[in-house]
Amino acid sequence: MPIKHPHIPEEQRAEQAEGLNPDKKAFHELDSGTFRIARSTARIEGAAGRAAARVYRSLFGKPLATAQESQERLSTAKALPILASDNISSSAYATEEIMRVLALGGAAALTLAMPVSLALITVVAIVVISYTQIIRAYPQGGGSYNASRENLGDLPGLIAAASLLVDYVLTVAVSISAGVAALTSLMPTLYDLRVPIALLVIAVLVVGNLRGIRETGKLFSAPTYVYLVIIFGLIIYGIFRYQTGRLPEYTPPVDWLPAAASPLAFLLLVRAFSSGAVALTGVEAVSNGMKILQPPEQRNAKTTLILMAVLFGTIFIGIGYLSSHIGLIPDPHERETLLSQLARHITGEGLYYDLVQISTALLLLLAANTAFVGFPRMGMVLAADRFMPNQFAFRGRRLAPATGIVALGTLAAILIIIYGGSVTSLIPLYTVGVFLAFTLAQAGMIFYWRRHRERGWRVAMILNGFGAFVTGLVAIEVIVTKFTHGAWMVMVLIPVLVVIMKLVYHHYKQLGNQLRLDLGMPHRQYTSPRVAVVPIADLNQAVTGALAFARSLSTDVRAIHVADDLVKASKLRERWDEQVLDVPLLIIESPYRDWTGPLRQYVQALSRQDHDAPVAVVIPEFVPMRWWEHLLHSQSGLRLKMNLFTVENVVVIDIPYHVKTTLFGGPRH
Amino acid sequence: MPIKHPHIPEEQRAEQAEGLNPDKKAFHELDSGTFRIARSTARIEGAAGRAAARVYRSLFGKPLATAQESQERLSTAKALPILASDNISSSAYATEEIMRVLALGGAAALTLAMPVSLALITVVAIVVISYTQIIRAYPQGGGSYNASRENLGDLPGLIAAASLLVDYVLTVAVSISAGVAALTSLMPTLYDLRVPIALLVIAVLVVGNLRGIRETGKLFSAPTYVYLVIIFGLIIYGIFRYQTGRLPEYTPPVDWLPAAASPLAFLLLVRAFSSGAVALTGVEAVSNGMKILQPPEQRNAKTTLILMAVLFGTIFIGIGYLSSHIGLIPDPHERETLLSQLARHITGEGLYYDLVQISTALLLLLAANTAFVGFPRMGMVLAADRFMPNQFAFRGRRLAPATGIVALGTLAAILIIIYGGSVTSLIPLYTVGVFLAFTLAQAGMIFYWRRHRERGWRVAMILNGFGAFVTGLVAIEVIVTKFTHGAWMVMVLIPVLVVIMKLVYHHYKQLGNQLRLDLGMPHRQYTSPRVAVVPIADLNQAVTGALAFARSLSTDVRAIHVADDLVKASKLRERWDEQVLDVPLLIIESPYRDWTGPLRQYVQALSRQDHDAPVAVVIPEFVPMRWWEHLLHSQSGLRLKMNLFTVENVVVIDIPYHVKTTLFGGPRH
Repeated sequence: MPIKHPHIPEEQRAEQAEGLNPDKKAFHELDSGTFRIARSTARIEGAAGRAAARVYRSLFGKPLATAQESQERLSTAKALPILASDNISSSAYATEEIMRVLALGGAAALTLAMPVSLALITVVAIVVISYTQIIRAYPQGGGSYNASRENLGDLPGLIAAASLLVDYVLTVAVSISAGVAALTSLMPTLYDLRVPIALLVIAVLVVGNLRGIRETGKLFSAPTYVYLVIIFGLIIYGIFRYQTGRLPEYTPPVDWLPAAASPLAFLLLVRAFSSGAVALTGVEAVSNGMKILQPPEQRNAKTTLILMAVLFGTIFIGIGYLSSHIGLIPDPHERETLLSQLARHITGEGLYYDLVQISTALLLLLAANTAFVGFPRMGMVLAADRFMPNQFAFRGRRLAPATGIVALGTLAAILIIIYGGSVTSLIPLYTVGVFLAFTLAQAGMIFYWRRHRERGWRVAMILNGFGAFVTGLVAIEVIVTKFTHGAWMVMVLIPVLVVIMKLVYHHYKQLGNQLRLDLGMPHRQYTSPRVAVVPIADLNQAVTGALAFARSLSTDVRAIHVADDLVKASKLRERWDEQVLDVPLLIIESPYRDWTGPLRQYVQALSRQDHDAPVAVVIPEFVPMRWWEHLLHSQSGLRLKMNLFTVENVVVIDIPYHVKTTLFGGPRH
Repeated sequence: MPIKHPHIPEEQRAEQAEGLNPDKKAFHELDSGTFRIARSTARIEGAAGRAAARVYRSLFGKPLATAQESQERLSTAKALPILASDNISSSAYATEEIMRVLALGGAAALTLAMPVSLALITVVAIVVISYTQIIRAYPQGGGSYNASRENLGDLPGLIAAASLLVDYVLTVAVSISAGVAALTSLMPTLYDLRVPIALLVIAVLVVGNLRGIRETGKLFSAPTYVYLVIIFGLIIYGIFRYQTGRLPEYTPPVDWLPAAASPLAFLLLVRAFSSGAVALTGVEAVSNGMKILQPPEQRNAKTTLILMAVLFGTIFIGIGYLSSHIGLIPDPHERETLLSQLARHITGEGLYYDLVQISTALLLLLAANTAFVGFPRMGMVLAADRFMPNQFAFRGRRLAPATGIVALGTLAAILIIIYGGSVTSLIPLYTVGVFLAFTLAQAGMIFYWRRHRERGWRVAMILNGFGAFVTGLVAIEVIVTKFTHGAWMVMVLIPVLVVIMKLVYHHYKQLGNQLRLDLGMPHRQYTSPRVAVVPIADLNQAVTGALAFARSLSTDVRAIHVADDLVKASKLRERWDEQVLDVPLLIIESPYRDWTGPLRQYVQALSRQDHDAPVAVVIPEFVPMRWWEHLLHSQSGLRLKMNLFTVENVVVIDIPYHVKTTLFGGPRH
């Protein structure tokens, strides 16, 4: 059926548009037929509603207009603390994780912490050099997902995306657990409360990010610099005291002492290396966040990346050197962190020790916050590519992608609850995804350079290829040694996520195909409804309103009363026959007291009689004035609508009856 | 406007009714226009839905027809264990509560348990004699609510009702806590799990009662008789061993020993009496439950009541005598119950001891179950009188009043969680309500006898009056001595409940007044909608379906697109202008990305233009095939409907578009 309705000439539209604006104050005309609404206009009614809105607003702030979004660019000095916080903060727990494994080989094995740390620093250097080439290729900010998808195809891209999503969740869980551990090392009485504290911190981050924290403030560069100053001070002072023989003897609690040396020395080294590989998390942050850098982005990113690696490497080696030479033993109960032991051993329990703990906790909080920026942004990219539900693309009242923020907070909270806030238990889940994403991104670059053949492409290809090879080896090594410690979960989860993303894509694609209107294609048409069904519980004003509307839709109107008790029903029929003369009343006895089932079945039978004209169900509904009054009605209308929603060829029409009541005294008019 | 539609003559109706049955298999015609549906017909789609339905059915059983309800009557021997379980089970903890208070006065004060118990038994006797007169007056089963409301008026009736509701909740909380305490005394390793165990027991009772446990089986009379046999055995054997001097010396753990004697001996006695008053809970059960007794109900009820009092009194005195003479000290940590100590002291830790603990726990479980019958029944009565929401009157698929059962379980669970399953902490909340209800019921009877003046009315009036006087004194005494221990909460809660019940009544009454159709009164009329608004996100098949329907409603159809991004919106306008020629497209820019607010405001402005004709909002909606596909759509239609629901003079119309998708591969046709 071709288009049959008359065309509106251009010149008439302006005139018509004028008539289409029912409220000139609220709707400001931008263009013919296009208006702008001044302000968020969700009306709030009732004292309780207004109080709730006040609480909501003080938590989440005033709404921000889309045009208010800023894209500030930062100098390297300001960008460094933000982009490097994730990586540098891993120095707070990486050494501890290495030594925790080595301790299984007896106290003597702890001296192997230095060689393991040096091996890891080598990997850091290889990955960093490789990433300088990714920065060259993607000056707009690449990210593992884009680099893998563009160069390797959809499937590797989705694997990288799934790995990154898992990583972001673990960044939050691990960083917050480690931050709380730094805090409870300082205040041991809080140890039993570490899970509630961690959950509270997540809640604060969720609310803060829904408000749309500006990452760019001084507030966000301070923790990194404070940590750097304090930790370098600690390391220098520690090395000075150690070299001059002024450090006291270290005596750990007796029950911390490792058992006799195990003979599996090499395997132990490999496992310690796997645990320490967590040191590489966050290395990719610079290549993802290039958009916040001032031009020349490429050079500034390179500077930031190398500075980050040098700072991290120095701290990591410093902590490793001091811990292994003092012979610190990690607390098997995770009551005190290794870094806390180290600081206490070097400086005693004074102000400096407190500063180390607090600045560590703050840096880890900042690191967790980076994931609250990265995960929702990743979600937006994936939603735009139709691999994730639409909701992830929606930006809330403060321009923050709310669904992603809430999803990340929820998942991280679940992990923290399951693992009781233990960093050591979370680490095996963390590292796998990080290295998978590294490997895919760098492997993708090999193909990129072969296609693009820019100046120096051969060197770049070799650097990325070597990086991919090394991180690939580490990925396999981590999967094998940590498989039974939790890495298997990630190995299951990543394919599951990939399948889900594929299903989501497929759904949206099919939906688009079915909904598409091709020019000249017949438009889907509904004729007027053939029959109008009015479900009724009683005969009252609300019902007569619905009947009147139903009469305007169809000449075949039927009232249906589902009855539990036929005696009551026959009384209703008597009243009906007296007062309603043109609409037949059908009574359906439902022996099982199910109200919606028989109605659904009746409507379904009607809709099957003729597929071309819809059945209209006209539902009379009470609308109480106050929220609590809704509790006094059984929401049967809502249940019926839900139930009819899935019946084809049925149009559901709500006829609201607004009930005006007073709290006490006579009825309002 | 008088009725204007033509009348359908009687003889035509049968013919018409024939045409009104679209599915002769499903709807069996009972009468002209009256049908019966064969079976609950809620259709279940999808494998996940069917699996959920299977789990649901195996938990809650097959639906029962209204006609399947049985009203079996029981012999006194069968009715006794059911009606008396609540009262008799209080012997499991009443003595302990008395001695717990006395212990505050030092070990010597414990010998006062006997006088306190005897005083309480006197009160029991007075109340029981008084209740024999209530039974005479209300052979159909009176209950404190009816007796108070009929004889004293609405307000006292509601106070009694509120007291009873509170009592039922506490019956469950206290009985289950005490039952679990009996169990954990036997198995001390379960002590830390007592709250989860109690919650599990509540869940089982909720599910069981939703299935509609038949109270009348042997299953329900067994625990009472088993407890009676075992506890009498224990008491007789205990007295025998005590009198013959064969009981071992009792040595409580040192930290249980009470501090030095307090000088406030009289106050202590009074407080001990308050705690022990919990012994009277459940005395009213017989007068409530007369419907299950065989005729002559009155005589059988009297026999049951007196038997109950004698059995309870003997046990209570027996336990009090043995405990105080042995000098048992209640465990201040509530790890072991007094009854468990007593049994262990008399019989040692053998099979008999185990039997005492298990039979006690089972009897308490049965007592808790009686509240699961009483509370929902009370809710049904109050809902029928319009003092509680309609939902409490609805009986679920197994004929059980589901709302009341779930509400009771939830409230009791909350109390158990708050009070950590401690009987001692719950007792002060329990007793107040019980005695308030006693007093009101008996006070009401004074007026009853004065009005009715049956044979012997003077004696009955004196008995009831004296009963009311005594229970009133106890009520005041309990309120005063237990006020700061939790009784204040009940004193706040009861008036709050009364106000709520009055508000509910007032709401339904006003609603009824507004909805009433008086004969000859003009029926509420809706003309056809003046204007039809179609909110759209895009131009697609779902939208054209909605537009077509909207055209059939009104000549003034307007499509409204709320835009975040004007560039995208102008592209939509281009496509619109090409393909839709007769319906103007309005674009409203919403700078704050709020979608429903501007639509609501637009519709509201339209509806204010003319109060006589409604505005129709025609919403195109996708209906996915599978439940998880709903997650891929943002439910914006549902949010819009919720938001428009409160705008007056607006009719909301859903035009569903059923999306047919396959999991993988090509689209279905």
